[in-house]
Amino acid sequence: MTRYMTDRGQQTQYAMNNENDTIIALATPPGVGAIAVIRLSGPSAIDRIDQVFHGKNLADQDSHTLHFGTLRQEGKIIDEVLVSIFKAPRSYTKENVVEISCHGSPYIVKEIIKVMLAVGVRLAKPGEFTQRAFLNGQLDLAQAEAVADLINSDSAASHEAAMNQMRGGFSAQVKQLREELIHFASMIELELDFGEEDVEFADRAALEKLINDLLKVIKALVSSFDLGNVIKNGVPTVIAGKPNAGKSTLLNALLNEEKAIVSDIAGTTRDFIEDEINIGGVTFRFIDTAGLRETTDKIEAIGVERTQEQMKKASLIIYMIDLAHDTVVELHRDINKLENLGIPFIVVGNKIDQAQEDLKAQVEKINGSVLISADQKQNLEALKDRVLEIVHLDNFKTGDTIVTNIRHYDNLLKTQNALQDVLNGLDNNITGDFLAMDIRQALHYLGEITGEITTDDLLANIFSKFCIGK
Amino acid sequence: MTRYMTDRGQQTQYAMNNENDTIIALATPPGVGAIAVIRLSGPSAIDRIDQVFHGKNLADQDSHTLHFGTLRQEGKIIDEVLVSIFKAPRSYTKENVVEISCHGSPYIVKEIIKVMLAVGVRLAKPGEFTQRAFLNGQLDLAQAEAVADLINSDSAASHEAAMNQMRGGFSAQVKQLREELIHFASMIELELDFGEEDVEFADRAALEKLINDLLKVIKALVSSFDLGNVIKNGVPTVIAGKPNAGKSTLLNALLNEEKAIVSDIAGTTRDFIEDEINIGGVTFRFIDTAGLRETTDKIEAIGVERTQEQMKKASLIIYMIDLAHDTVVELHRDINKLENLGIPFIVVGNKIDQAQEDLKAQVEKINGSVLISADQKQNLEALKDRVLEIVHLDNFKTGDTIVTNIRHYDNLLKTQNALQDVLNGLDNNITGDFLAMDIRQALHYLGEITGEITTDDLLANIFSKFCIGK
Repeated sequence: MTRYMTDRGQQTQYAMNNENDTIIALATPPGVGAIAVIRLSGPSAIDRIDQVFHGKNLADQDSHTLHFGTLRQEGKIIDEVLVSIFKAPRSYTKENVVEISCHGSPYIVKEIIKVMLAVGVRLAKPGEFTQRAFLNGQLDLAQAEAVADLINSDSAASHEAAMNQMRGGFSAQVKQLREELIHFASMIELELDFGEEDVEFADRAALEKLINDLLKVIKALVSSFDLGNVIKNGVPTVIAGKPNAGKSTLLNALLNEEKAIVSDIAGTTRDFIEDEINIGGVTFRFIDTAGLRETTDKIEAIGVERTQEQMKKASLIIYMIDLAHDTVVELHRDINKLENLGIPFIVVGNKIDQAQEDLKAQVEKINGSVLISADQKQNLEALKDRVLEIVHLDNFKTGDTIVTNIRHYDNLLKTQNALQDVLNGLDNNITGDFLAMDIRQALHYLGEITGEITTDDLLANIFSKFCIGK
Repeated sequence: MTRYMTDRGQQTQYAMNNENDTIIALATPPGVGAIAVIRLSGPSAIDRIDQVFHGKNLADQDSHTLHFGTLRQEGKIIDEVLVSIFKAPRSYTKENVVEISCHGSPYIVKEIIKVMLAVGVRLAKPGEFTQRAFLNGQLDLAQAEAVADLINSDSAASHEAAMNQMRGGFSAQVKQLREELIHFASMIELELDFGEEDVEFADRAALEKLINDLLKVIKALVSSFDLGNVIKNGVPTVIAGKPNAGKSTLLNALLNEEKAIVSDIAGTTRDFIEDEINIGGVTFRFIDTAGLRETTDKIEAIGVERTQEQMKKASLIIYMIDLAHDTVVELHRDINKLENLGIPFIVVGNKIDQAQEDLKAQVEKINGSVLISADQKQNLEALKDRVLEIVHLDNFKTGDTIVTNIRHYDNLLKTQNALQDVLNGLDNNITGDFLAMDIRQALHYLGEITGEITTDDLLANIFSKFCIGK
């Protein structure tokens, strides 16, 4: 009796399930531009394009070459195009791939796709090109997911994390963990095969040491998710303080500065999100910005209470005190409340040019406080440095593996639990059968991260979130 | 003394004025997509990309080949890319051209453009790639203008007109006219050179016949502009009739039908313009649609008066009569008014299922009338056929030259006037000097159409309307 705990066969099986038809989709963003690119993938991609392309016979051409010609429907020219040929397996999907570069008119794109559909290709589903790349072994699952993250990255930090993951940094780490575990699992399995004879091939002390080592790595990955989440989704931040404290003046000063920095390279300026600011490559997402923008006519001293609910969702609170008008009593009362919240906060003394000396002195005494003038744009750099310190970006070193994907985080947590069960089992001297069960669980969860173990549901769930054409 | 009436030297001169630096721009529509394409053109395009590309040395590669690698800035990977190489003169601009196909993230596009700017390329101005293609003799001016029209074409008819123009159909016709005129002009010039000797090289009767032949062609082109304008900008159409006649029901029926037809191929569905309908490949632009959509509670019998002002801007009026409730007197009164407007109109009898027999009989008697039920979507096809008849689309045969560009129209009109002056001059037996002047005028205007004669202002005016990256 032999049980295999590895399951690499799975991937091949999926590749065979692949219908092997030829798919088509617009690969460039929708809309009007100088050019648009339509992509085909599948065994008959080149034959199909030859049916409508007038120019050279493309099937006779080398891989990685470009050809000028016209696409025609019933003799009528749809467009003058450049066609790129990629022959299997030297392509993104490892299938034959054709890219049609046409004039960037939605009308023309539609006509080209229509004429290709007429010769027997079909519209690609969301993420189907990348799914084929995965199924054909070009990328593992974590790498495939990074492609979508890369496309959506909008800051230096999120770009770097996605790039590292797409290049296989994270996958390599997960695969190494898994291999070490597989080696040990096979020893245990061997014991089970000789079960009657009561031999122990697997050294219990060595197993315990291995599991502890693995747990250390997995725990580090799990805890990197806090940072990864912040990198991917931005740091939820609240600006608190009384209505006159200058909260919206500060927000506007930071926003306008960024707008000035954002390059005006055509087509690359991102839609400006009113309540996101990029500081040192990290996105800060301001909560309740709408509230900040309301003109507050009421003379309520709402202080930090106003956004109490929002504060609980924040990872960072910028607490602004009006050095010209607020009181020392108010300061201490609010600081007290902030400390009780247990969320990192920065005390910012605003209106430094009109400061009351005693209040200013009190603010300066507070650890990590910053004195600024939002109105005069004074000392904003110091505030930004402080903000970056708080998110511990210095923890994020180039090349470090950061978990940014909640699916991976979830699987790492489950792996951690399963390994903890193995440790507990060892402590309690349980038999190999039970140890093997927990180890198999851990292997399963690790395998799902990189896609060595997959189900149709899992794949559908992942790739349906991709855009069509990717 | 020799005067040259040809001026082909001009184009070369512009090409030499070209600064010959290397330009860069995003060529695909802005936004997020699977891929984006960044284009470079200029003598050092390939050398510049080699400075940041890690993979093969691209300068050593053949034209029309594709290469996978990474773009790096200070060792850090910006993206994995596919680079296309086009070596001068085998490219769109006839210069060295590089196309970088990267992941479709605005952040990545910006970073790539930034790193290329850092190695000494500069941002392209709007239309600068096509302008270089023109200056380097790849396209003439009318063809270059057609590129922009092609990108903006959104119906079969506008697409076909732009494609014909880009493929050189219109240019060939203009150039032929110009060559015939140049031949004759050279005879006249010869006369002037021998001015003292009072010889006539140019046969006056033959000249008159030539000018008349040319005028016939030019008049046909000039009159094609009405159709061309309609093809490019849509047929301005008004739906008139009393509030209860079913005007907005008809509009909605036509719109919904089109929405159902418009393919849902991702990324190609055009932004739906509420008051444009595509019938048989022609766009009909409805005027005062907002008025139609108002809920009219007032029981005014505003009939055709309501949109009187709008009607004057229309090329087509769809006049709806409520067969169930309107009267024969109202019908004849309104028809009378419509006839006085002098704009083509179609009488549409609506609510055919509840028609008063006498009114229905009267409507049927009207030439070209159509009986429908907008509500039941009955007989709408007959109405559409009638609408297409009215715009004389049957005049538009595949391959026909249609003038769609107002600049060309303007120059053709001026040419026509100059040639008319030549004819008048011949009638009045004026001397060769004056004939030559008018012929030179005509040659100038024709030459400006295809760009054999250009000025910096003219070029700036044309290409500034292009998008960046084209």
